[in-house]
Amino acid sequence: MIKVAILGASGYTAVEAIKILLRHPEAKIVAVTSRQEGSPPISTVHPSLVGRLELPLEDLSPEEVGTRADCVFSCLPHCASAELIPQVLAAGAKVIDFSADYRLDDAATYLEWYGHEHPDTGRLGTTVYGLPELFRKQISGATLVANPGCYATSAIVPLAPLVKSGLFETEDIIIDSKSGVSGAGRSPKLMTHFPECNESMSAYNVGRHRHTPEIEQMIRRHAGARPQVIFTPQLAPMDRGILSTIYIKPKGKVAEEDVMAILRQAYTGERFIRIVDHLPATKDTVDTNFCDVTARVVSGRVLLISCLDNLVKGAAGAAVQNFNCVFGLPESLGLL
Amino acid sequence: MIKVAILGASGYTAVEAIKILLRHPEAKIVAVTSRQEGSPPISTVHPSLVGRLELPLEDLSPEEVGTRADCVFSCLPHCASAELIPQVLAAGAKVIDFSADYRLDDAATYLEWYGHEHPDTGRLGTTVYGLPELFRKQISGATLVANPGCYATSAIVPLAPLVKSGLFETEDIIIDSKSGVSGAGRSPKLMTHFPECNESMSAYNVGRHRHTPEIEQMIRRHAGARPQVIFTPQLAPMDRGILSTIYIKPKGKVAEEDVMAILRQAYTGERFIRIVDHLPATKDTVDTNFCDVTARVVSGRVLLISCLDNLVKGAAGAAVQNFNCVFGLPESLGLL
Amino acid sequence: MIKVAILGASGYTAVEAIKILLRHPEAKIVAVTSRQEGSPPISTVHPSLVGRLELPLEDLSPEEVGTRADCVFSCLPHCASAELIPQVLAAGAKVIDFSADYRLDDAATYLEWYGHEHPDTGRLGTTVYGLPELFRKQISGATLVANPGCYATSAIVPLAPLVKSGLFETEDIIIDSKSGVSGAGRSPKLMTHFPECNESMSAYNVGRHRHTPEIEQMIRRHAGARPQVIFTPQLAPMDRGILSTIYIKPKGKVAEEDVMAILRQAYTGERFIRIVDHLPATKDTVDTNFCDVTARVVSGRVLLISCLDNLVKGAAGAAVQNFNCVFGLPESLGLL
Amino acid sequence: MIKVAILGASGYTAVEAIKILLRHPEAKIVAVTSRQEGSPPISTVHPSLVGRLELPLEDLSPEEVGTRADCVFSCLPHCASAELIPQVLAAGAKVIDFSADYRLDDAATYLEWYGHEHPDTGRLGTTVYGLPELFRKQISGATLVANPGCYATSAIVPLAPLVKSGLFETEDIIIDSKSGVSGAGRSPKLMTHFPECNESMSAYNVGRHRHTPEIEQMIRRHAGARPQVIFTPQLAPMDRGILSTIYIKPKGKVAEEDVMAILRQAYTGERFIRIVDHLPATKDTVDTNFCDVTARVVSGRVLLISCLDNLVKGAAGAAVQNFNCVFGLPESLGLL
Repeated sequence: MIKVAILGASGYTAVEAIKILLRHPEAKIVAVTSRQEGSPPISTVHPSLVGRLELPLEDLSPEEVGTRADCVFSCLPHCASAELIPQVLAAGAKVIDFSADYRLDDAATYLEWYGHEHPDTGRLGTTVYGLPELFRKQISGATLVANPGCYATSAIVPLAPLVKSGLFETEDIIIDSKSGVSGAGRSPKLMTHFPECNESMSAYNVGRHRHTPEIEQMIRRHAGARPQVIFTPQLAPMDRGILSTIYIKPKGKVAEEDVMAILRQAYTGERFIRIVDHLPATKDTVDTNFCDVTARVVSGRVLLISCLDNLVKGAAGAAVQNFNCVFGLPESLGLL
Repeated sequence: MIKVAILGASGYTAVEAIKILLRHPEAKIVAVTSRQEGSPPISTVHPSLVGRLELPLEDLSPEEVGTRADCVFSCLPHCASAELIPQVLAAGAKVIDFSADYRLDDAATYLEWYGHEHPDTGRLGTTVYGLPELFRKQISGATLVANPGCYATSAIVPLAPLVKSGLFETEDIIIDSKSGVSGAGRSPKLMTHFPECNESMSAYNVGRHRHTPEIEQMIRRHAGARPQVIFTPQLAPMDRGILSTIYIKPKGKVAEEDVMAILRQAYTGERFIRIVDHLPATKDTVDTNFCDVTARVVSGRVLLISCLDNLVKGAAGAAVQNFNCVFGLPESLGLL
Repeated sequence: MIKVAILGASGYTAVEAIKILLRHPEAKIVAVTSRQEGSPPISTVHPSLVGRLELPLEDLSPEEVGTRADCVFSCLPHCASAELIPQVLAAGAKVIDFSADYRLDDAATYLEWYGHEHPDTGRLGTTVYGLPELFRKQISGATLVANPGCYATSAIVPLAPLVKSGLFETEDIIIDSKSGVSGAGRSPKLMTHFPECNESMSAYNVGRHRHTPEIEQMIRRHAGARPQVIFTPQLAPMDRGILSTIYIKPKGKVAEEDVMAILRQAYTGERFIRIVDHLPATKDTVDTNFCDVTARVVSGRVLLISCLDNLVKGAAGAAVQNFNCVFGLPESLGLL
Repeated sequence: MIKVAILGASGYTAVEAIKILLRHPEAKIVAVTSRQEGSPPISTVHPSLVGRLELPLEDLSPEEVGTRADCVFSCLPHCASAELIPQVLAAGAKVIDFSADYRLDDAATYLEWYGHEHPDTGRLGTTVYGLPELFRKQISGATLVANPGCYATSAIVPLAPLVKSGLFETEDIIIDSKSGVSGAGRSPKLMTHFPECNESMSAYNVGRHRHTPEIEQMIRRHAGARPQVIFTPQLAPMDRGILSTIYIKPKGKVAEEDVMAILRQAYTGERFIRIVDHLPATKDTVDTNFCDVTARVVSGRVLLISCLDNLVKGAAGAAVQNFNCVFGLPESLGLL
């Protein structure tokens, strides 16, 4: 059994990771941390865990966590995560980082988008981006994995094979995404107060959402050219799910079946990427680690539509998939 | 035109009152208050009001409010309301109080349920309870009206005529209510954070919700006997609406048509109480000032089912109805 | 009082029109039709109308309807509408048609998109498109008005002034729209069965939604050039509201304030178009006749975001606005 | 591996059972039936199953099903189920019946509540009721198990130990239940059309819901007295979950801790019944096989509050729990 600890266990991605790990035959949760006083049972914060996980929420040092566990899932916010991870790694544990801290290659982009100096610049550019479908080899055996952003996964999965094919413009890629509210985290705010966002759709952070540079970096890596991406995140009145509608221009004429063939070929044998003929709904993927993708050609543009569960394939499921990959386990263990 | 001011205009009941008053042919909103700094336009806090009401949110003294307006709608929280209302009244304005402060007859019950001394005990017991269908005569011309609680209205409307008839036990009345989330107000809290309460039902404040003494007081007044009420409030994943399912025992045998006849007779000519044969849904009453009521007899018990919109008939609509009554206007003005 | 009849009164746009007309000081509903047997009271089909409208649902001939009423709102499906409207007009009534039948200029486009011959081709090309903000003069006094499609309004309102300015490409306009479920009508179908579409987002009719030619026709009319539009309709888990996110390319460089200025200037004095600085939410416009619009410039593209209530500004509210316009009444009568 | 077939696989309880069985280490799905023409892959009906279950939906005879499988889950409607099950049993398979057909002890009650003669009366009264927490011994090794109704489970779990204790009246038990919409099945109907039931709460089948005799039978069996039950089912705007609020009278005075102790003792060691101190939310149990229960004493009455997922502990999860029990497997296999 591989011993796992969860840093920052009071939020939604953490509880999702816990639920998946409780089903995982090779993982054992040994610690869950939080700055709650008095080490209350985790079920006081997550009542769905009553009778399922009896651990207390402890306020542990990173060294202690890294010593107790073989692998640490860091569900801390960005910046906070990179401040502790070096010490967790130093204590000998491997780390799957849910935050954005190790996703970008360079400190300048991080500073530009996150507004402060990166606390651990030395690991930028060498940490693997945790999308096993694209970077399986590098993840296998890694000590630190940067778990991708939920929107980013929904965009990169369909876009990567297309831009890699050389058949598409990398300028003027439009990503119009709609997300469930759990993506905004568990801290109560007016924007996510039920009577405010229920029965409503709205855009937010237009042109400045922090998953943008992550998407651009991955397109650049696959296309070999600096892309121009417009990313519009939108809040939908539902708990979970991301629907991304992506518009990309072919350099020449392209048929729907050709685009589908590129997608199918790229993800042949991939357990968690489903290239489907029908128009997928987020609900088809909710509570699963699947990402459903289809393509349409309309008026000379290619539409890519992708769906996933932001808390599973967009966070905790991807993390467990990375965990399996890091420890040489079957990649779908605990995830089906 | 009657000049109206709204005290505490940043919440849901206030914006609902504003929208109703904007349609009211005899009312003109002259001031809206809030402790926001810098007197921002009210539409910065309620974007639905852009182009509809151009007033700033001002931090006005109660004297100033009472001087500017002929009638003040106080949407302040309990206790805060009763601290300002005496001064508003002294300045010459009439007041419709949305808070619970003047609903109960005696200071001891207030202390017991609200946990602090009442700031204006002199007006307890003489202030009229603002249910025009029951207390029209006293409301007409009153200077201060205590607008009823939303749950309370949904319970008192169906119960009052029954207990008054003398045909029912006043012991063991069970009120099982389900409310939309707007009833919890506009301050973000974990309980009303979208991913917590969406797709979920739960009970809260079982046996200790503050609308209980208000319901008991009204039943006592109509029955002439001290009732025993069990009131269970429950949160439903919707913006608005209260469904109350009420169980009451007839002293002898009673037929469904007799119960319906009592209800129909009690509310003959009442524009806003609809005694219906079908099982009503909260949606039938949403965005209206109607309260729909029906009755069924099951295994010797009478079931009363009532529906209303907690922000309209349960708050702002009732307030405007009271306003009309106080100023001698047709009671449904602005409300159809 | 102008006598109004509603053809096809059992659906959502009809009941919305009824509720608005009940508040309208110059309109009186004199007939509501449906093929229901036995002429049941309309409140049996719409329980929210109990005590508000006591008319029976009658199965009347178009001649009878056109004789009884001064103005007929046709809420029939496309094709069915154009089969009856000529007879209603012949009987002397004016008509506001909610269906798509008279929106397109030519019979060939109608055949292409609607799959059958138009039953009344003689009126195509001469019937006015019912967007008063663009065609007020022609609507005024018209005998037949084609009420616009809900998606179409959300796209045309922000796009018309921009394409008219000549500063934007009319190729490669992308309209990514999200709609509440009431837009799909009231007939139960699997796609709109609650457990299927609740908590889910999905695209449908990609590249072939019937509002596309309507949008293209209006852009062409304002731009003087045949546009290329990609329109993606998507279903959002809410009752009402459309959020359209529109991507359009400026011919040269353009600043955000310039785009906003074009919008502001185009709609100066328009009561129901609100050009706002903030990112609007559909909820800001629900239950109102407002259409909220803003613009952003991102990576050289212009984003337009528009919100409206598909049943009000997208259907019944627009119809009443047209009605006011046709009969020379103040345009916002009954709509504020 | 135990071979399992699903009869009537196009509905919600069937797909839920399939998802659970796909995780079950000792079960293998060998057939899924439906009257669809042309034997389409099951994923055309349930797109969430793409890549997870590749079986066709076959229109098989009961003999064929009973021959292919060791155990058959019948997800057919009542009456249809009892018409086929005898032949499935004759072919040698064991059966878990999701329908109500074998839940009641006598044919007369069945006729009274279901409106037609029972097609297989010989098995009434001897078939075990599939609540393992109450009837584990009889389920173990049974050939036919009657899977309980979802509402029934939510009521019987908290009530059984109390009425068995002899400390409570069995008259005047009130069960006020709120259910998610998936409980109404997958056939589109107006009542469950999204814009009808979304954002609304309503009661239905008051005094005549078919789970009533099932609840009464179980209370009678535990109490030894014929109970009088009032059961009010209500539709809540959510996919899944039942919240039952139950009111029962103690014969004498009873303390909250005594009631909790009775519940705790009754379910000691039960993996899927969680007696909790807090007020549970349906969300705590969604997608799990747990039933959460708590008790409160208010004004001399005992309130029991129970939560479960109607599709899991209320249907498919309970079925798999029964399956495990029947085949001598650990009862929580595949369910954690």
